[in-house]
Amino acid sequence: MEKAAIIHYPADHYVYPISKKTLHIRLQTKKEDVSEVTLIHGDQYLWADGKWQYEKTEMKKSGSDGIHDYWHVYIDPPHRRSRYGFQLKSGEEKLILTEKGFYEEAPSDSGYYFNFPYLHPEEVFKAPSWVKDAVWYQIFPERFANGNRGNDPEGVLPWGSEQPSKDNFFGGDFEGVIEHLDYLHELGITGIYFTPVFKAFSNHKYDTIDYLEIDPQFGSKDTLKRLVAECHKRDIRVMLDAVFNHSGYYFPPFQDVLEKGEKSRYKDWFHPHSFPLKGGEYPNYETFAFVEQMPKLNTNNPEVKNYLLKVASYWIEEFDIDGWRLDVANEVDHQFWREFRQTVKRIKPDLYILGEIWHNSMPWLRGDQFDAVMNYPFTTNLLNLIAKKSITGTEFANNMTAEIHSYPANVYEAAFNLVGSHDTPRILTECEEDKDRVKLIYTLLFTFMGSPCIYYGDEIGLSGEMDPGCRKCMEWDEEKQDRDLHSHIQRLIKLRKEEKLLANDGHFEFIQNDSNVVAYRKYDDFKTIIVLANPADENAEVTLPYPLKGVKVTNMLTDEEFAAEAENLKVQLDGFGFEILSFPASFNK
Amino acid sequence: MEKAAIIHYPADHYVYPISKKTLHIRLQTKKEDVSEVTLIHGDQYLWADGKWQYEKTEMKKSGSDGIHDYWHVYIDPPHRRSRYGFQLKSGEEKLILTEKGFYEEAPSDSGYYFNFPYLHPEEVFKAPSWVKDAVWYQIFPERFANGNRGNDPEGVLPWGSEQPSKDNFFGGDFEGVIEHLDYLHELGITGIYFTPVFKAFSNHKYDTIDYLEIDPQFGSKDTLKRLVAECHKRDIRVMLDAVFNHSGYYFPPFQDVLEKGEKSRYKDWFHPHSFPLKGGEYPNYETFAFVEQMPKLNTNNPEVKNYLLKVASYWIEEFDIDGWRLDVANEVDHQFWREFRQTVKRIKPDLYILGEIWHNSMPWLRGDQFDAVMNYPFTTNLLNLIAKKSITGTEFANNMTAEIHSYPANVYEAAFNLVGSHDTPRILTECEEDKDRVKLIYTLLFTFMGSPCIYYGDEIGLSGEMDPGCRKCMEWDEEKQDRDLHSHIQRLIKLRKEEKLLANDGHFEFIQNDSNVVAYRKYDDFKTIIVLANPADENAEVTLPYPLKGVKVTNMLTDEEFAAEAENLKVQLDGFGFEILSFPASFNK
Repeated sequence: MEKAAIIHYPADHYVYPISKKTLHIRLQTKKEDVSEVTLIHGDQYLWADGKWQYEKTEMKKSGSDGIHDYWHVYIDPPHRRSRYGFQLKSGEEKLILTEKGFYEEAPSDSGYYFNFPYLHPEEVFKAPSWVKDAVWYQIFPERFANGNRGNDPEGVLPWGSEQPSKDNFFGGDFEGVIEHLDYLHELGITGIYFTPVFKAFSNHKYDTIDYLEIDPQFGSKDTLKRLVAECHKRDIRVMLDAVFNHSGYYFPPFQDVLEKGEKSRYKDWFHPHSFPLKGGEYPNYETFAFVEQMPKLNTNNPEVKNYLLKVASYWIEEFDIDGWRLDVANEVDHQFWREFRQTVKRIKPDLYILGEIWHNSMPWLRGDQFDAVMNYPFTTNLLNLIAKKSITGTEFANNMTAEIHSYPANVYEAAFNLVGSHDTPRILTECEEDKDRVKLIYTLLFTFMGSPCIYYGDEIGLSGEMDPGCRKCMEWDEEKQDRDLHSHIQRLIKLRKEEKLLANDGHFEFIQNDSNVVAYRKYDDFKTIIVLANPADENAEVTLPYPLKGVKVTNMLTDEEFAAEAENLKVQLDGFGFEILSFPASFNK
Repeated sequence: MEKAAIIHYPADHYVYPISKKTLHIRLQTKKEDVSEVTLIHGDQYLWADGKWQYEKTEMKKSGSDGIHDYWHVYIDPPHRRSRYGFQLKSGEEKLILTEKGFYEEAPSDSGYYFNFPYLHPEEVFKAPSWVKDAVWYQIFPERFANGNRGNDPEGVLPWGSEQPSKDNFFGGDFEGVIEHLDYLHELGITGIYFTPVFKAFSNHKYDTIDYLEIDPQFGSKDTLKRLVAECHKRDIRVMLDAVFNHSGYYFPPFQDVLEKGEKSRYKDWFHPHSFPLKGGEYPNYETFAFVEQMPKLNTNNPEVKNYLLKVASYWIEEFDIDGWRLDVANEVDHQFWREFRQTVKRIKPDLYILGEIWHNSMPWLRGDQFDAVMNYPFTTNLLNLIAKKSITGTEFANNMTAEIHSYPANVYEAAFNLVGSHDTPRILTECEEDKDRVKLIYTLLFTFMGSPCIYYGDEIGLSGEMDPGCRKCMEWDEEKQDRDLHSHIQRLIKLRKEEKLLANDGHFEFIQNDSNVVAYRKYDDFKTIIVLANPADENAEVTLPYPLKGVKVTNMLTDEEFAAEAENLKVQLDGFGFEILSFPASFNK
């Protein structure tokens, strides 16, 4: 066996509680190198006849990524704690992995094993329970709908009359959103994520001037209250965008430092390198990227911390919002986010905390900070597969298997999955205006692990390049909307609501196959749903590796039912075709 | 190359800041599989001509453990953030590892690389600066010295008149410690760790009755104040033992629950499964292990938390203690320890927080909880090597290399290294009363990474089996003390104080060699100290792999100086022999 590739780390995604009584334990081995893995485990304080008492539980393969096999097991330690090790077999070869290294026979001293010291129920990672079956819709408020001409900013342009630019305005506002809530409700949306709505300078509002005021072009605080109430009436939750990494240039404390330099009482609210402050290509103060308009806030300063936590509390307490999306979340210190979590969860325990992090985010998802992150690795892989055609179906499955196994299972099911946003080209544009590919992408988005989000207008076929191009005005003329795409998405949302397995209620696994087709299943002890997606423009055929003869199959998109005639069900797929099939059986080994 | 064995995880011991400007980055590869590793790194926001700007820095091998090679590099990102990947070479083969997997050529998109988002100076792990050159002495107060017959407990036995048992008392107290502080000072001690001193039932005092009172058999609060003051006069710091995982059976809140059951206002201070509470083999309430006398405290209950944090503060504020050792630290929840750290560091920023954890402790050493843990893996390996002779010198070096690389370097240098405690047989007994082996063990203890601790009496040759045997009365009759062992330890402490490199001020590396000798070096840019230890009873010879011809060598234990005559210096060692050699050169090519 390839010892150097046998990997377990007694923390994070390798061992964690998934409930107040169950631990989930994982191991990685070199692909196809190990034929059997058994967990050796027992309570460290349970001894009999001078010997540590342990039992053995078989581990199962939960996936392969082309380089590694992933093994996992669930155990219920009777006293909330467990010592454990791994017994690996490959043909005649046997090996035991403990915390102290490899052995030929299981050491009798429990001190040699890995240790899970105590399962604290309050340390079980728990995103709000509503998140895993939420269906999100992202609104860039300036561009969704103009419901009140009275609050239009100066120089507003007629709706959709021009291409979006870095600094033009079309007058979208809260009234506009309220007017179209029935549209969203009918589509099936259960959560809206608004990019920033606080008083700011630009059209995107990521350069905050006042964290405690609504930008007047969007309406008043009363309008926001009404908006939230109208959303809640329709079972739609509301998430706002917290831009706490940096303020805007016109944030009064920053203006004070600009003006008074070292003498400003706000100088420690930022990270000046010297005085007076100077902008330019490389400002002499810390910023987001090198953007002089976005001075980095010193979130380690108790005054700043208190101010921002007050902001976070205010919009929950006074406006009853249901989530905070945290901008540039990984550039703010962990301690700030820990206090943020404690503060907001004290007010509203089921508030969703969503971090914007594009990279590995395990350090923020240990239960003490975020509930989820924006799942850009999913976006990248999905687009590489279908829009850019730069990876194969097998590579997609490999990459996503590695990705999924880099987080605890209960973390990944609350991930915020997106196929585009105000920061990326629109999905239709990424797919070279090919609607078949867009439909295929949405089929995967709505059946994968995690909670899906639609970027406003994508559902009716809005196009657009990288921002500002992707921030076009929403098209409300039904004649100009792609109603066929809209129906497809509406159908997918309906299926997801009717079938809990689609909404992260079971297990997830890729189905390895020799075609280029992406195939995965979601299953529990009674039922299996299989999703098949052909990322190529040629027809494809997949043979499902389960004993299916005579088993009833339901095509969930068409409601057709049939029974497989042969032992192995072969499914034909058109180019960019997809199927969602349901079986009244688990197939769990 | 063996891709499955190329390991990097963008957190914990694989990437971390060691100062406000420097990052330390590590990679693991299969042993002897990769010949060259180069870090590709750059600021994610620095682009020129539409291309991400990165540079390349060679990584060095920092050790091998028989299975893996460990590579590392230090970089100073100019703007506190870095994207990075690894370029690996093996002969003609080249491979790039990024966060998104392996590539043949370095991807141009910085989004594919690993991300270190922002170096927050306040997130740099920092144990108190005095810890790395501290020399500890552990006192079990009931058995160190009886300085005041007036506070002897009922039924006290004449000092040393009997073997220690589970429940006998000899009357050790604070006055006894004060009387012998000059002895400790002369030995070179700079810190005392006291096992519990609060009011408790047993002789070991781990079953607290009152966390806010001194056990009357040890003296009064005034005596403790005097003890701390006398220690501080001699530059000796004082660490107390916080038993916060569980209380004692006679802790009044527990007695209240025993008495009133479900009606007790303290029932949520513990973890009852049902009422009335019943002890026995498997109590119906959570305990330490299954010990009915040690009911587990509910540290998630804000009342309990406040109470224990008040206790933690009280002994610092009123008695000026310098450290807290945390009993059974890994069975208490992380959030409690985070608040504990914030509380005690607010009062005394350089207070040492030391957790009792016998296993991998990375989750407690991320900077938000402990400064160090008791380094039992070092104890186990050292004893297996020299006392039990169950592993070879090479295995010791391999195991410790893996161990050292499982923590950030700045974490490991503050580790609390011990060769025995009140929970283990005494080192002389472990060594079958062989003093040569004990001396060898101390030579390694005092020259290794971390801060060393002597268990009271070990320095003068006290023996004893597993507790209670290891809790004998200290021997104060010099005639009965092993003065030769004492001198050896005193000499080692002196060297450690004179030579900062020995006290963790430089880098540490094992020197691979073909003999069974344990060899390592501590070095900076100007100087190298090499420690050689022969764990076998036969003579041994080691050839030092450095260009030493004509280089002055100092034998630090004898002060002899000589110059190496041949290109390769060969060092002869007796059975269980050791050398500490100093060279005025770095050898860090």
